[in-house]
Amino acid sequence: MQIGVLGTGMVGTTIGTKLVQLGHDVMLGSRTRDNEAATTWVASAGTGAAQGTFADAVAHGELIVNCTAGVASIEALGSARSADLAGKTLVDVSNPLGFPDGTPTLSVFGTDSLAEQIQRALPDTRVVKTLNTVNHLVMVDPSRVPGEHHVFVCGNDESAKATVVDLLEGFGWPRESVIDLGDITASRGVEAYLLFWIRLRSVIGTGDFNVRVLR
Amino acid sequence: MQIGVLGTGMVGTTIGTKLVQLGHDVMLGSRTRDNEAATTWVASAGTGAAQGTFADAVAHGELIVNCTAGVASIEALGSARSADLAGKTLVDVSNPLGFPDGTPTLSVFGTDSLAEQIQRALPDTRVVKTLNTVNHLVMVDPSRVPGEHHVFVCGNDESAKATVVDLLEGFGWPRESVIDLGDITASRGVEAYLLFWIRLRSVIGTGDFNVRVLR
Repeated sequence: MQIGVLGTGMVGTTIGTKLVQLGHDVMLGSRTRDNEAATTWVASAGTGAAQGTFADAVAHGELIVNCTAGVASIEALGSARSADLAGKTLVDVSNPLGFPDGTPTLSVFGTDSLAEQIQRALPDTRVVKTLNTVNHLVMVDPSRVPGEHHVFVCGNDESAKATVVDLLEGFGWPRESVIDLGDITASRGVEAYLLFWIRLRSVIGTGDFNVRVLR
Repeated sequence: MQIGVLGTGMVGTTIGTKLVQLGHDVMLGSRTRDNEAATTWVASAGTGAAQGTFADAVAHGELIVNCTAGVASIEALGSARSADLAGKTLVDVSNPLGFPDGTPTLSVFGTDSLAEQIQRALPDTRVVKTLNTVNHLVMVDPSRVPGEHHVFVCGNDESAKATVVDLLEGFGWPRESVIDLGDITASRGVEAYLLFWIRLRSVIGTGDFNVRVLR
């Protein structure tokens, strides 16, 4: 599949590499066409890896993965042509994390969420939130955490969620490890979860952890 | 032990009953001395159960458990005499949950938390946050959820946390199921977690669930 990955940080390059390994044709998008991190990534990721602007990557992808910093996501997506976004599935793995006074917090919270902001900004795009509750390495290799553990999806479009569950399965997430939290407003919960994750990360001393929901 | 439980809702009465069953001498505190829910509770909980105002319950307890609605906690604690709170351990199980436009959100979030507000308001009291990540029934009977799952504690005073871990053990939480998240600022994470919990609750259809941290 042709996939546009937005963001050249650890999340974008890690997901981009995994998608290339899975045989997809991936364009990594950033502010500028000659972004250095993207150039390095293209050189190492091999055949199937390309780079471009956010707009280029969106035009390239049948599916888009938003790996930009959450606080910059709306702007990044705004630079793409609306016609290139319409009807497509956009996987949002980002978190609206900021450090206003050196302390981690979220720029949107409670009665709204970043994924909802994106969905409102792009009403013709099918936004699915997932993977934002684990670190970039676990995202594409859930076996780094032993045992059964869960990943969450939410979004307003059932077929887009089904596509994303297929993608997650390709990343190594068994189908039964995916919990569908319903519509895109569930992003409020999984984004808020980040503050819990950050503290756990600091206590555990590694990002190789996740939760299993027991009932 | 003499314990003051603040709040006569489901959490307060459930925890109060468990504490009475464990042989503690419990006073349930509320705004008024003749609170109807408290009267009903005293009649059913049996020997070791009493009722009073918030100030009475605080004076009664060697240990205090805050089970008031989070948005009312500071006011409830403010009605107690400072001397009756000084040096005591206060277990905060509440969440600063509100529904400003019918939607669940938190009244404090990100760079602050309810438990920190309480700790600042009561600098001579040893605040420990715990149990706010599970529903009232699971709080005092973790075996309602099958398998190994976790509860979190945080606070600035190590001996107060040790007291709380003993209390949790009495409730049925094995010592190894308690994860110490560090100082009271970790409340930001466990309180934010509530928005995730609320959505999971709605999808799962019961409050009998919890998470296990796998690493």
